[in-house]
Amino acid sequence: MKALVYKQVGKVELQQRPMPRTVAPTDAVVRLTKTTICGTDLHIRKGDVATCAPGRILGHEGVGIVENVGPSVTRFKNGDSVLISCISSCASCEYCRRGMSSHCTTGGWILGNEIDGTQAEYVRIPHADCSLYSIPNGLEESSLVTLSDIFPTALECGVINGKVQPGSTVVIIGAGPVGLAALITSQFYTPAVVIVIDTDANRLKVATEIGAHATFNSGEGGIDAVIKAIRDKTDGKGCDTVIEAVGIPETFELSQRLLAPGGVLANVGVHGITTRLVDAVTTPMLLKMVEAKKLDPAQLITHRFKFEEIVKAYETFGAAQQHRALKVLIEM
Amino acid sequence: MKALVYKQVGKVELQQRPMPRTVAPTDAVVRLTKTTICGTDLHIRKGDVATCAPGRILGHEGVGIVENVGPSVTRFKNGDSVLISCISSCASCEYCRRGMSSHCTTGGWILGNEIDGTQAEYVRIPHADCSLYSIPNGLEESSLVTLSDIFPTALECGVINGKVQPGSTVVIIGAGPVGLAALITSQFYTPAVVIVIDTDANRLKVATEIGAHATFNSGEGGIDAVIKAIRDKTDGKGCDTVIEAVGIPETFELSQRLLAPGGVLANVGVHGITTRLVDAVTTPMLLKMVEAKKLDPAQLITHRFKFEEIVKAYETFGAAQQHRALKVLIEM
Repeated sequence: MKALVYKQVGKVELQQRPMPRTVAPTDAVVRLTKTTICGTDLHIRKGDVATCAPGRILGHEGVGIVENVGPSVTRFKNGDSVLISCISSCASCEYCRRGMSSHCTTGGWILGNEIDGTQAEYVRIPHADCSLYSIPNGLEESSLVTLSDIFPTALECGVINGKVQPGSTVVIIGAGPVGLAALITSQFYTPAVVIVIDTDANRLKVATEIGAHATFNSGEGGIDAVIKAIRDKTDGKGCDTVIEAVGIPETFELSQRLLAPGGVLANVGVHGITTRLVDAVTTPMLLKMVEAKKLDPAQLITHRFKFEEIVKAYETFGAAQQHRALKVLIEM
Repeated sequence: MKALVYKQVGKVELQQRPMPRTVAPTDAVVRLTKTTICGTDLHIRKGDVATCAPGRILGHEGVGIVENVGPSVTRFKNGDSVLISCISSCASCEYCRRGMSSHCTTGGWILGNEIDGTQAEYVRIPHADCSLYSIPNGLEESSLVTLSDIFPTALECGVINGKVQPGSTVVIIGAGPVGLAALITSQFYTPAVVIVIDTDANRLKVATEIGAHATFNSGEGGIDAVIKAIRDKTDGKGCDTVIEAVGIPETFELSQRLLAPGGVLANVGVHGITTRLVDAVTTPMLLKMVEAKKLDPAQLITHRFKFEEIVKAYETFGAAQQHRALKVLIEM
């Protein structure tokens, strides 16, 4: 089969690889129909992710059709349409039972990292019963790839950890796909005001289109002017929730300066330390919201590529500002 | 001044009464500009509320202008536009400090109950600093009377106590003003589905107009048919939250039968026992939502009367189904 492989620092390559097979009785093999590229994949390509060795098939997001299941898989059978979670969960270890599947002792974020991932024609999914989700009848599956990682990450690490409540004043720093997904899912809790900060005028325009009440370009006029404007907007108090979705020291400092007394800073951007990893425990709820037409998972998809063009897709996503790219969809 | 007085069981009357004056240094006197009638006032008229003696001026909802303040009032001055909370709060007793102002040792729901109320040209408000709210600039004050009682009651006792969450399936039993306000404020938490049950076709029509996904008339076809239809709609599971906003044994039993395993029953209707009284701690948030245009306090007002016609307003509100009445506004 064809697969996108992390070859060496700075390089990914489309290669021929053997078909995966079930290894444990709880495994399933899924034929991918759609996948996508995450900012984390770009970090891997840069050599920033120590757990991911050269030779690895990348990707931890996707939808597809179950091709084959191990004898212990009870919830899925061949031919089922499934959403693949970025988090593999045994559902029975101490951490999984506490809802912290990201720390699963035999799972967590391993796909496209410690084991081969979803940017391939087929993928082996461990702990299939709790790492796959049935796609409800009647849902258009292709855009659901945004539910593999970015929507649960934005909702769990940003909105829920940030304790967004009805009437809150929220600021989101970073209008990439996760920041924008935080903007969308924060609206589940009806904050009074959501402000978005970025340096990319196009992304701020998208933020306004999907419901931001105000946006600030911190690349124009400087950080101090942005802080002053937001303080003025909040009667000098600052914001109840600050969602940091960039992950550099400057934005972390900015987050602290925008926080109201008693407010909550939710750190989504990876700063070495993270306060919460995505557990993907909200995936069933997000699927229910898509069914109820309260969430449009296609909103953030800006580009579509054939799988044969995935190396070009990496280039496009890696130069996102130039290409006005948010999420890129890879069609198998 | 003119005031609406509870004369005896079954009778209210417009009378001449002396102007109220500040008694404690923390009191204010407010000149009413708008008031309204609550279902509780009808209960008082029927003789159902033991704490309210004949001779009492009724009413615990209103907006007005501060006429006079005691020397210890610091947050308000003569001429301020204010919203009157149904709950008087000292803010410093054990209960107030725990956010349970309904149990304030020198306040709680006393207005139009243990002390004279708001269906009058003037009213004395005890603990004025924490029992009145400034009306934000630019808000049209008249419809804000719905924020004195029904919106905080619906939100605190129904939606918050019922733990409505994004993706929840919610059923509201009773589409009176409080049930409809629960329908509106439940949407702050983006439930996937909200179902409303009543016996009044007009109220169910209003419920559909303001966002119910399904309505059932339990007066047609009987309770068992409604239960079966709702179980079918929820894959046999029942509802995550049941908000009971009627207060009779039949609807309480219905609530229990509609609840999913692990679900939450929020008992708003008065059954003798209540699990939570309104504390009106959400009033500042609700005002912020009105300012942010995420809440329209006028939605539930169906009738307007001059204060001189308040006895007629009682008749209209007391025969609400016949008059298609939700909330009636009394203009001073």
